[in-house]
Amino acid sequence: MKFAIVSVGNELLRGDIVNDNAKYIAQKLAALGHSVERIVVVPDRVDDIVEELRRLLKYDFIFVTGGLGATHDDVTAEAIAKALNRSLVLDEKAVKQVKRWTDKKEVVEKVAKIPAESEVIQNDVGVAPAFITGKIAALPGVPAEMRDTFEKIVKRFEKLEVYEEDVIVEGKEEDFLEKLNSVVRKFPDVEIGSYPKPGYVVLKFRGKKERVLEAKREFLS
Amino acid sequence: MKFAIVSVGNELLRGDIVNDNAKYIAQKLAALGHSVERIVVVPDRVDDIVEELRRLLKYDFIFVTGGLGATHDDVTAEAIAKALNRSLVLDEKAVKQVKRWTDKKEVVEKVAKIPAESEVIQNDVGVAPAFITGKIAALPGVPAEMRDTFEKIVKRFEKLEVYEEDVIVEGKEEDFLEKLNSVVRKFPDVEIGSYPKPGYVVLKFRGKKERVLEAKREFLS
Repeated sequence: MKFAIVSVGNELLRGDIVNDNAKYIAQKLAALGHSVERIVVVPDRVDDIVEELRRLLKYDFIFVTGGLGATHDDVTAEAIAKALNRSLVLDEKAVKQVKRWTDKKEVVEKVAKIPAESEVIQNDVGVAPAFITGKIAALPGVPAEMRDTFEKIVKRFEKLEVYEEDVIVEGKEEDFLEKLNSVVRKFPDVEIGSYPKPGYVVLKFRGKKERVLEAKREFLS
Repeated sequence: MKFAIVSVGNELLRGDIVNDNAKYIAQKLAALGHSVERIVVVPDRVDDIVEELRRLLKYDFIFVTGGLGATHDDVTAEAIAKALNRSLVLDEKAVKQVKRWTDKKEVVEKVAKIPAESEVIQNDVGVAPAFITGKIAALPGVPAEMRDTFEKIVKRFEKLEVYEEDVIVEGKEEDFLEKLNSVVRKFPDVEIGSYPKPGYVVLKFRGKKERVLEAKREFLS
């Protein structure tokens, strides 16, 4: 399956924090053999989020993180509802989830208001529940809460057959460039990534196991 | 000015690495008072990069990182040329830059081929030069090379007047939500971000100095 990740938050666009949530989600999906096609960071503004969600609906599934809290800049639920032309409703299951943490009316009425026909995913770490609406899942932005709710959702996606092996080569890319390019041409069904580090290069071979091993053997020969 | 950042690389979409480059660039631009409107991570595929560049040209300037090396998956220069309808040419200044590091023909002819009418920016840390073409700057993906070339370019952008102060509040967002929302309503010209941490919340006030101080005073009163 092809996924997109949308990270909502001005704090990411200002470089206050690094996008660890996206890395976490991407890594888990890759380990299952799926591909993430885009990671997009957007400001806490409804129209910007709607614009991105609508265009990314061409992929099979979208994970959205952040903007589910109770403050003025938490607008993700509203944006998802708008992107899918659904209304925002006070969800009874979400109300129950929020009330496990707080009875404050202002919080309950903001955080439990989610797109109509959503499935609520319990958050066992913090106030805001996650939810799934159509092919969009919205997760809280606080990393521990994101992970808790993500793990409950990701189980639903099948583990695909995929095999990966890394080869570490001393030196620089340019020293083995011709060899690498010839292997790439010969194995179009093996994804080969080349990641230069100081003093060595990591080559990642990814695909069907047999072909990965063949390509690797060819490269090392 | 409004900026976008495009990070090219399958390694980011697979969660192999975190997007530190985007954080670095975003932080530097924010410190100058500019705003980053989008950070987009795309695969090493020409058409995907072209699609993103074309739509992000609505912003004032785009920083692209990654995909400038000599291997098969380095397609950023080709994509930028296509997005701007320019040809790819072997740039004499780029050739000189690459030859400071290597004479390998395969490397020189790949890395020094950049969009026509580009301005070459010398990379003092690695092989691939950065370049500016129209309102797009392409920087290498290796962090030390990215920073070296970014610093040479960012000097050109004006430092705008912007003032920021953080307030750290013990407890949870919901404990001071009403107060916060009333300050947000009263100071529409002050950007207020609320970032919950375990046990405390960081509030960021950003805008004209006088108004930031007023808003902060109001919140703490």
